[in-house]
Amino acid sequence: MNYFAEVRAHAQFAAEKMKKNNLFTTERLFCDVYCFESGQEQAVHTHNGSDKVYYVIEGTARIRIGAEEREVGPGTAALAPSGVPHAIKNAGPDRLQVIVLMAPKP
Amino acid sequence: MNYFAEVRAHAQFAAEKMKKNNLFTTERLFCDVYCFESGQEQAVHTHNGSDKVYYVIEGTARIRIGAEEREVGPGTAALAPSGVPHAIKNAGPDRLQVIVLMAPKP
Repeated sequence: MNYFAEVRAHAQFAAEKMKKNNLFTTERLFCDVYCFESGQEQAVHTHNGSDKVYYVIEGTARIRIGAEEREVGPGTAALAPSGVPHAIKNAGPDRLQVIVLMAPKP
Repeated sequence: MNYFAEVRAHAQFAAEKMKKNNLFTTERLFCDVYCFESGQEQAVHTHNGSDKVYYVIEGTARIRIGAEEREVGPGTAALAPSGVPHAIKNAGPDRLQVIVLMAPKP
């Protein structure tokens, strides 16, 4: 098991759609870096029994959680609790990178 | 429940010892920003049944996980799995800020 991960070394993008790059996986959680080209998104969806945390590291994200939607940049964290619909889109002209952690692993 | 958190608004330091500032708490996890003045540390300890993920956002951290110790900066993530001893110290001259997520909540 790797204990350390350089996010830049894992941050790969794809022209077709947003790309999830795994940093860590355990029995209890996963931690990814999600990479979005401008305009790419993860459509609204819900997890039951798992919570997700986002942390924006680069770019501009439009994050929707429940009835709340915000355009946020690096240094903002967001929580999508179990049962709450959530979505994320690259709302800026540049690439978007977001650390995503979900527990328990669905 | 707050769905969004600006890390800068929560990042408080203390002269006496490193300070944990909570961003989110659910039944399943907590997400904090840990703030260290130069030289401050969290001594080696172990959680059984919970995994911890670190993500360095500012400064220089010396992170030990099991037998591995590395000096890392912004953009590095680290995993301290259940049962593995871990420690973190501000090894640089400037302030250190680290996002810390643990699941399940111990």
